[in-house]
Amino acid sequence: MNDAEDDTLAGSRGTPPGDVGLVEPRDFISIEPFPFENGQVLPGFTLRYETYGRPNAARNNAILICHALSGDHHCAGIHSLNDRKPGWWDNLIGPGKPVDTNKFFVLCANVLGGCQGSSGPSSTNPATGKPYGTSFPFVTVRDMVRAQQRWLDGIGIASLHAVIGGSMGGMQALQWAVEFPESVKRVLVMAATARESAQGIAFNEVGRQAIMQDPGWNNGDYPKTGGPRVGLAIARMMAHITYLSDAGLDRKFGRRRRHNRPTRVTAPMPLAFDAAAIPGGELKVDPSALPAAASFEFEIESYLRYQGQSFINRFDANSYLYITRSIDHFDLASAEGTLEQAFAAVKAETLVIGFTSDWLFPPEQNREIALALLRAGKRASYAELDTDLGHDSFLLESPRLYGLVRGFLE
Amino acid sequence: MNDAEDDTLAGSRGTPPGDVGLVEPRDFISIEPFPFENGQVLPGFTLRYETYGRPNAARNNAILICHALSGDHHCAGIHSLNDRKPGWWDNLIGPGKPVDTNKFFVLCANVLGGCQGSSGPSSTNPATGKPYGTSFPFVTVRDMVRAQQRWLDGIGIASLHAVIGGSMGGMQALQWAVEFPESVKRVLVMAATARESAQGIAFNEVGRQAIMQDPGWNNGDYPKTGGPRVGLAIARMMAHITYLSDAGLDRKFGRRRRHNRPTRVTAPMPLAFDAAAIPGGELKVDPSALPAAASFEFEIESYLRYQGQSFINRFDANSYLYITRSIDHFDLASAEGTLEQAFAAVKAETLVIGFTSDWLFPPEQNREIALALLRAGKRASYAELDTDLGHDSFLLESPRLYGLVRGFLE
Repeated sequence: MNDAEDDTLAGSRGTPPGDVGLVEPRDFISIEPFPFENGQVLPGFTLRYETYGRPNAARNNAILICHALSGDHHCAGIHSLNDRKPGWWDNLIGPGKPVDTNKFFVLCANVLGGCQGSSGPSSTNPATGKPYGTSFPFVTVRDMVRAQQRWLDGIGIASLHAVIGGSMGGMQALQWAVEFPESVKRVLVMAATARESAQGIAFNEVGRQAIMQDPGWNNGDYPKTGGPRVGLAIARMMAHITYLSDAGLDRKFGRRRRHNRPTRVTAPMPLAFDAAAIPGGELKVDPSALPAAASFEFEIESYLRYQGQSFINRFDANSYLYITRSIDHFDLASAEGTLEQAFAAVKAETLVIGFTSDWLFPPEQNREIALALLRAGKRASYAELDTDLGHDSFLLESPRLYGLVRGFLE
Repeated sequence: MNDAEDDTLAGSRGTPPGDVGLVEPRDFISIEPFPFENGQVLPGFTLRYETYGRPNAARNNAILICHALSGDHHCAGIHSLNDRKPGWWDNLIGPGKPVDTNKFFVLCANVLGGCQGSSGPSSTNPATGKPYGTSFPFVTVRDMVRAQQRWLDGIGIASLHAVIGGSMGGMQALQWAVEFPESVKRVLVMAATARESAQGIAFNEVGRQAIMQDPGWNNGDYPKTGGPRVGLAIARMMAHITYLSDAGLDRKFGRRRRHNRPTRVTAPMPLAFDAAAIPGGELKVDPSALPAAASFEFEIESYLRYQGQSFINRFDANSYLYITRSIDHFDLASAEGTLEQAFAAVKAETLVIGFTSDWLFPPEQNREIALALLRAGKRASYAELDTDLGHDSFLLESPRLYGLVRGFLE
């Protein structure tokens, strides 16, 4: 395909070549009872999803994208011409991109338990007319995948050319290979693990406590516009550190200070969220807590506060509790004894990609997935990319990553 | 020295050989004005301290121990015969131990800005009759060390055989070598850094936000028995993870669950601090938030909650804000340009010990200290110990560590 053709296809909605352009989310509504892994049953559920590209005649060119803890169904394109930010994996997905929407029909749904349109704790319980809150059933990664399978079945996609995911998305991709081996041809797992580690559980638990100890949480019963906003911001700030790396933070922020303030300390520390620096800042700030005299503040601090602040405007605290708990619970080997046994039924070819600076799901945990697949006699490869960007490396621009993805899919 | 002699000396207070036995803290009260690095002046200050062993006639056998963020002056011995726990470095300090109190006069003071008897934000401001709170001057590591020097001078110790510290204690030890080069013969630094990294600042900032956003903080103005207890517990839980390691947590806790609950999830997640599991538990817990049905809980979770809970019963939240800020501020090279230049006046011989699994102050940051000293023409060595216990490795029993300490001091 030459550039001109590329231009025609990609630019059909008036957007630049290479981007999927304007996209619209849709809702899949299942009205069959859905049994959760823990035994509870909901009368049905909704998954909000997006698609890019078109199914071919054989309907065998579908690629399912699975999102991570704080992601959603909007992984490529823009929702309006004024959108400042495209979907979260827009660098990877589009016409001519590594996940090429000229060739593949790409789908992504917000997970069950999520808060971006799919059924979750913030959904209205028809029995009470109020949000489910903590009465929503506990959701496992396996539940997420089973709901996705019902959705794909409902829209006529019986076979997946590939399932792709990073972090918790990688957990779902692995679960797909285990749960529906006949439906999945390829699995591409990045920056993931086959079992959440004690350290991962520990960080998740601190985030949950920050939320649940916030008086605004109120046992999960809070209005949609309120809730434990401070606790959620604290949880996000902490989690955000685990997505990066020491070296990456040092390179990006180092010990640089804001406001060209003097290096030597001349006054007490800054004491509160800097509301002025945050668009729409809503966290409790008493200006009297900020010393009038000059103080010092590191760039990394205001960056983190901004991350916390922007997260609470788009994420539901109960969903955060539920999904972190899904991650904690994830242990592919738990039912079977060993990971090899868990992989016994897998038919997909698997590529696992680890990143050297990822200390949340470090390289060895990714390598272990590929090794266990190989020990189980499956087709698997492992690639390790040298980055200093930490866990989030899978989301970032990287010609080497793109080459691996493109090669694996074609 | 044979065992019998050892027994006599060490057992003089009726305690087993090898332990310093019953000890009593004392207060050093300076009534000279103390100028802080930021320009503020207090009319004086108190340092609470302990000593073990005796000064020799030449008064040249003193070893100063510097404590870390959450430590205090009580680093060896017990305060009463009912004491369940000895001082925090009791494994290292005592008759016949690596820091041998038969030979050395060992001293340790709670840092300026601390909350265990030394002057800090929880001290009473004589001008108001209330705690200083956030009106206490900002304290740098250099201020801590200058206050220690005044204390030692006041009790007639002009020369130090060695200054020893891990983590923030190592920062103080380095600052001693830089600030008072004539007074320090040896510096032993463990698990430390010459400059706090962006990642370290980031974790500290999340802890501070957890405290300051807790309504109990009230801009630092709270009663001694109250305050931001939940925020402080959250901060401690998070920080505690950074003191350990992925591998260590996996070995110690893995994915083990409490209460022999079933592996498969059968009910919603546990939702709150488990007050029943915590002696004297005081965090807000609404029992109705705990599902009546069986749930699952990982051992690492209850361990962390216990750490958070026990910390708030012994530590002041404002001191936590101040001391983490002292750590963030620490950058030996900031005034001079490079670390070599900062070390220009150093006369002490230095041993730096890094631990392979320490990701808070990783080996390379420790190695860099020794390299800069060597580049500056000083006597320095670096040792790296292979552990899976993370940053806290310096506090734990290790024959290799003991051998290094003993060899360096003698």
